[in-house]
Amino acid sequence: MVAKVIDGKKIAEDIRKKISKEIIDLETKHCIKPSITTIKIGDDPSSELYLRLRDKACEGVGIESKRLVFPKNVSEQEVLTVIKNLNDDASVHGILIQYPAPKHISQGKLMKTVNPEKDVEGFNPVNMGRILIGDEYLIPCTPLAVLTILEYEKTILKSKNITIVNHSNVVGKPLAALFLNRNATVSVCHVYTDDIRQYTNKADVLVSATGKPKLITRNHVKNGAFVLDVGITNTKDGVCGDVDFDSVKEKAGKITPVPGGVGPVTIACALSNMVKTYRNCLEEK
Amino acid sequence: MVAKVIDGKKIAEDIRKKISKEIIDLETKHCIKPSITTIKIGDDPSSELYLRLRDKACEGVGIESKRLVFPKNVSEQEVLTVIKNLNDDASVHGILIQYPAPKHISQGKLMKTVNPEKDVEGFNPVNMGRILIGDEYLIPCTPLAVLTILEYEKTILKSKNITIVNHSNVVGKPLAALFLNRNATVSVCHVYTDDIRQYTNKADVLVSATGKPKLITRNHVKNGAFVLDVGITNTKDGVCGDVDFDSVKEKAGKITPVPGGVGPVTIACALSNMVKTYRNCLEEK
Repeated sequence: MVAKVIDGKKIAEDIRKKISKEIIDLETKHCIKPSITTIKIGDDPSSELYLRLRDKACEGVGIESKRLVFPKNVSEQEVLTVIKNLNDDASVHGILIQYPAPKHISQGKLMKTVNPEKDVEGFNPVNMGRILIGDEYLIPCTPLAVLTILEYEKTILKSKNITIVNHSNVVGKPLAALFLNRNATVSVCHVYTDDIRQYTNKADVLVSATGKPKLITRNHVKNGAFVLDVGITNTKDGVCGDVDFDSVKEKAGKITPVPGGVGPVTIACALSNMVKTYRNCLEEK
Repeated sequence: MVAKVIDGKKIAEDIRKKISKEIIDLETKHCIKPSITTIKIGDDPSSELYLRLRDKACEGVGIESKRLVFPKNVSEQEVLTVIKNLNDDASVHGILIQYPAPKHISQGKLMKTVNPEKDVEGFNPVNMGRILIGDEYLIPCTPLAVLTILEYEKTILKSKNITIVNHSNVVGKPLAALFLNRNATVSVCHVYTDDIRQYTNKADVLVSATGKPKLITRNHVKNGAFVLDVGITNTKDGVCGDVDFDSVKEKAGKITPVPGGVGPVTIACALSNMVKTYRNCLEEK
């Protein structure tokens, strides 16, 4: 068996087309152009590639993307005040914050302060709680990308065995809740799990997001499984995922490559959340 | 091997003693007696036993417990207005709503409307979200009872394999997040799981909350596991848990009985949340 390789760029393109149309319709009706603002603190270069890709994607679908850049020694209070002003500013339809923030600034406080209705990243506790209780609204982009790919491939989740290798706030935990909301059986393992194979081996759907290149080998995968690789690591051989692609693709049923898999869909899902917050702002008027 | 049978009544008594002392200290300092209000809609008799036990427990530790009872045809708007008034009433330190509500009233709306600071049951999306992101604050009483028993027994959760049989909003999903926050490996199965044994069999800690009497037999349990039985069902032979107690206790390491296990600790945990909301109200002054 050789796995179907998922074309994340194609899925992302389809999402962008749908979004472009939706924006034209909303803009024509309301005569207001969608506009989002990203807060960036300090000059961490690692986030720059993602931000540039996202800005380009925004431009492609007609979303205005502004940036507020602060020096890395800015006070927490100043950033919180700026977020509150953006919350109240009717011309701002979505707010994003580039993480990680410097250590003297509480990320939790930033996330809590963003108006849940403008929370493109879905990190506000209200939006997280709505995921947990199955009243899903704004979903963080990476879990949303995983769900979107599975839906695009018409994968039935109910009764499926799903294993997630990651238990972070922004990927593993919300994703587990999203899968449980769809009546899948879910296991979450991570760096403290003794032997992840006992969980990955029974997974009909396997999601890995560890940042450890080639952690997932063919010995970790069930025949015919859908393997979604969320890991992206820069190695001397180029960008590399969590999955040992060449060996796993001989055993899996479907597999997302790195690059060109979950990554582009994640950016498209950010756009999709932006349209949601834009629509919220228009409908509140 | 014969399991240690956990004495839930003893644990609950220890919690109540601690709470009584805490309340006396706070009351002496602030000269305000703790007071909570429960909203009950309709006359569903099934909740009456729990409410009476809770009222008695409140009395025992010096918490005033009031009830607002509405006819089952009350409008949603009227209940929401009452909740908002309770939110603003400084003499009310905690708000509880007896679920299920009648079908014409959205439970989600009620939960969302309770001020998160007075949310004794921890059902407001903000409190649920704080569980998901590991910023735990008010935790729903049943998951809190399970955690409390494990902590009382000094059970190390990190790296343990934990299986939860239940994926509801009030038990399985928040409990999964709580265990992941403690770096356990967590599997959640439920009625849509093909074969729960493949998950229960590897569990160092097994939590069942299905309401199906004797669902969990010795064939479901790993040698030496800690088995926590959250199920409570009235049968012709009396109150019965999810676990086939007599056979499982020969194989498990520790086990909670029904009755006298998780139940009494759950009520004590409700008191413990009441003290938390009471303290919040005092500190806000």
